[in-house]
Amino acid sequence: MKQSLGARTIIYPAPVMVVGTYDSRDRPNVMTAAWGGICCSQPPCLCVGVREQRYTYEALTARRAFTISLPDRAHAAAADYFGMVSGRDADKFARTGLTAARSRLVDAPYVAEFPLIVECVLRGTMDLGAHTLFVGEIVDVRVEEALLGADGHPDLEKMEPIAFMPGNDYYGFSGRVAAAFSAGAMYCGENQEG
Amino acid sequence: MKQSLGARTIIYPAPVMVVGTYDSRDRPNVMTAAWGGICCSQPPCLCVGVREQRYTYEALTARRAFTISLPDRAHAAAADYFGMVSGRDADKFARTGLTAARSRLVDAPYVAEFPLIVECVLRGTMDLGAHTLFVGEIVDVRVEEALLGADGHPDLEKMEPIAFMPGNDYYGFSGRVAAAFSAGAMYCGENQEG
Repeated sequence: MKQSLGARTIIYPAPVMVVGTYDSRDRPNVMTAAWGGICCSQPPCLCVGVREQRYTYEALTARRAFTISLPDRAHAAAADYFGMVSGRDADKFARTGLTAARSRLVDAPYVAEFPLIVECVLRGTMDLGAHTLFVGEIVDVRVEEALLGADGHPDLEKMEPIAFMPGNDYYGFSGRVAAAFSAGAMYCGENQEG
Repeated sequence: MKQSLGARTIIYPAPVMVVGTYDSRDRPNVMTAAWGGICCSQPPCLCVGVREQRYTYEALTARRAFTISLPDRAHAAAADYFGMVSGRDADKFARTGLTAARSRLVDAPYVAEFPLIVECVLRGTMDLGAHTLFVGEIVDVRVEEALLGADGHPDLEKMEPIAFMPGNDYYGFSGRVAAAFSAGAMYCGENQEG
């Protein structure tokens, strides 16, 4: 029996995306967003929802470029802080002791200490209400080389990414439970694949 | 030192969203999507990327309603299967032995055995290339009542949701690593909160 929780923003999991931008005075700023994610395979795109009153909204609109830095478990508190205060009032890099590095490909900074970054140019926006959805085309993904596994993908057991679980805080991952595009083959009949 | 992986669709984590729709003959269908997530707080909205050649694309466009059923760990293989075959060729509910239930609020079916469902009406679309982003306004979230915790949120240790990790398959969760809008307070000065 299912119980109604009402019209609420619940999907498990949500990513913890630290959005990096330069402001009008070229100061690096970051804010943490959990609304959005990858949204298109070709061209590779991600989307992130940002409120109009956010300092990052101004920067995204003016610079049309941003990065996403993904925190590891060790930086969960810093990522949380990045979502609690405004870059209008605080230098979030100075406050956390983290380093703003300039992207070589897009006009935006990222958090050097975070294990994985995604560099984007703004492709479009969609006004949805409280949040405007910013769609960025991904021009590169960069990861700490010590975290790369033998298969060329980041080793998530070493990387220790985190998730935002609405109403339930930040969570870590326990490991692989099934292989994608493979575990489901047990249900495929001869004429049904593809 | 960070190494480039190229322009790839990597954000950890992505959700495992089983999109439920009725086709033109009122047959229930489901497909699994990992691109998208919550995208606006008010009105509460989520987005999901669907390729134009997908059977679900037709149904979304015609019916303008859908559900998202979130699988638990025990249904990871079924969710994987839902993304491997087309509803044009297979009755995915019959094949997996799962039950299509009719939403009471929107013109779409959901997977009765999955622990949490989100019911949506289509609000808009954005063509991005390979994928079109469908934005749905959330009209209700329903969860198995046995999975509700004392705080009124789903108990994720009982629910056992899963994540899609691009290139790294489906993962489970290890539990809470930090409290949201709280862990970051350690970096807040007196004049910087809010």
